[in-house]
Amino acid sequence: MAVQVAVIGSGREHEARAEEVGQLLAERGCIVVTGGGGEVMAAASRGAKAAGGTTIGILPGERRDEANEWVDHVVVTGIGHARNLAVVASGDAVIAVGGSWGTLAEIAFASRLGRKVVILEPGHEVEGIPRASLPEEAVELALSGLGGSGA
Amino acid sequence: MAVQVAVIGSGREHEARAEEVGQLLAERGCIVVTGGGGEVMAAASRGAKAAGGTTIGILPGERRDEANEWVDHVVVTGIGHARNLAVVASGDAVIAVGGSWGTLAEIAFASRLGRKVVILEPGHEVEGIPRASLPEEAVELALSGLGGSGA
Amino acid sequence: MAVQVAVIGSGREHEARAEEVGQLLAERGCIVVTGGGGEVMAAASRGAKAAGGTTIGILPGERRDEANEWVDHVVVTGIGHARNLAVVASGDAVIAVGGSWGTLAEIAFASRLGRKVVILEPGHEVEGIPRASLPEEAVELALSGLGGSGA
Amino acid sequence: MAVQVAVIGSGREHEARAEEVGQLLAERGCIVVTGGGGEVMAAASRGAKAAGGTTIGILPGERRDEANEWVDHVVVTGIGHARNLAVVASGDAVIAVGGSWGTLAEIAFASRLGRKVVILEPGHEVEGIPRASLPEEAVELALSGLGGSGA
Repeated sequence: MAVQVAVIGSGREHEARAEEVGQLLAERGCIVVTGGGGEVMAAASRGAKAAGGTTIGILPGERRDEANEWVDHVVVTGIGHARNLAVVASGDAVIAVGGSWGTLAEIAFASRLGRKVVILEPGHEVEGIPRASLPEEAVELALSGLGGSGA
Repeated sequence: MAVQVAVIGSGREHEARAEEVGQLLAERGCIVVTGGGGEVMAAASRGAKAAGGTTIGILPGERRDEANEWVDHVVVTGIGHARNLAVVASGDAVIAVGGSWGTLAEIAFASRLGRKVVILEPGHEVEGIPRASLPEEAVELALSGLGGSGA
Repeated sequence: MAVQVAVIGSGREHEARAEEVGQLLAERGCIVVTGGGGEVMAAASRGAKAAGGTTIGILPGERRDEANEWVDHVVVTGIGHARNLAVVASGDAVIAVGGSWGTLAEIAFASRLGRKVVILEPGHEVEGIPRASLPEEAVELALSGLGGSGA
Repeated sequence: MAVQVAVIGSGREHEARAEEVGQLLAERGCIVVTGGGGEVMAAASRGAKAAGGTTIGILPGERRDEANEWVDHVVVTGIGHARNLAVVASGDAVIAVGGSWGTLAEIAFASRLGRKVVILEPGHEVEGIPRASLPEEAVELALSGLGGSGA
């Protein structure tokens, strides 16, 4: 079964690095999971598609057409911000790129569930969470120790 | 974008028909969405995979390995029975095969969200929900009126 | 600990009976739990307050001020229709008054969780769920077999 | 309508201060909202009850009897860690006492929803969140600027 990696975050200024993360993950055979929205989520999905990968988007609302155009498989949860839990729970590992309060909630939930989390700099400072300065390093760190096709 | 159809239900005695529903949906290019568990959910996913299709499983728990082996893309929600809302919200249409209280909740939520629902007989009697006596008829009914690759 | 009874449903034509249900529950020392919204939910809460009772409203949105004015304690879930699960799970018993798809989902979830459900006529026809023709009978049925102050 | 304040956190070593926070909130007429579990949640509720206050517990599981004994009104959500969203959304303000990943998720969600959050030291270091060194100061900070009976 292919490794699933959740890419979380927000901020237009982080899109280029998120796109690179998505591309690197797809090149390693990983499926990219996001919240299905804009900015970092769209960029990571776009990067994955550019590399021939597969993407899943887990939306907070009730309508499938709210997903960005680079999402292959749309999950419509209808549960608002609580969908953040589903995004990180669905990743075998999680990479945070930029982001605000919603991203911090996701980092915390991912850690609570025992998912491996990596923060790509710049980004939240969270005690105990490893950081990477480059997309390639973030992907390496996230996948290290996981089994499956992406390891 | 491929049409996504949620197949819901439970009961070992309904597995053969669920498998046929999954196969027919995959043959028409639809992605099969289920709750990722056993019985009807597993059978529908197995049928879709036998026809070369793609499957999504939306789990109630917190662990990816609780999905049945015919699920390609696993969404781990961590929200218990509330994941039933996500299952039907993620379908452009919904087909119910057998099932008990959880399935009835899904039929109701799907209708609340305006998703087209078809009950394959035998199954719940719900006023206002169309019924089909055979898997082929259920798939026809579910897809009628939808756009996309499955219509 | 006081018995908590969830009153679910919708429809302006059912408000008078919902108000009576709320009043009867409060007279027996039960706390009335609803979804915190209008129509049947507001009427049941109003009835409970008129009898000096206590009410809890469990809202789907993210703002406390969306509760009706007869709710004492407001729970803001932010999870949309998935809050229906919380409403019935929070009742030791459940009484349905009128209602549409959301109410049917609640009846199903309540049954799935083993909560005692009573449908006050007229209302959904659901196999296996007892029915009452009058508010007093609905309250009696709902409380029969429960322990605590309301039994 | 009484002000509702969510008290979040965990850790046996923080119970004494959580109890004091609960007591101070009750003395000012606030309703204390928690996740209904042990340690900090139980202590805050116990403190509120000792001062004659009212408490609400919002549980992650499906059973009412999982609440601690100092919870007056139990909300059973059935949505696991996603109930953390409901806990903080139900507070007009939020006070964090100790805590681990779940608490960090709550601080983040509360900030995302615009709730006022105060961290009682020692506790998580989160940029932009005000800190208090004593329970009394935490309560003052949390209530400052709110309307209602607790302000």
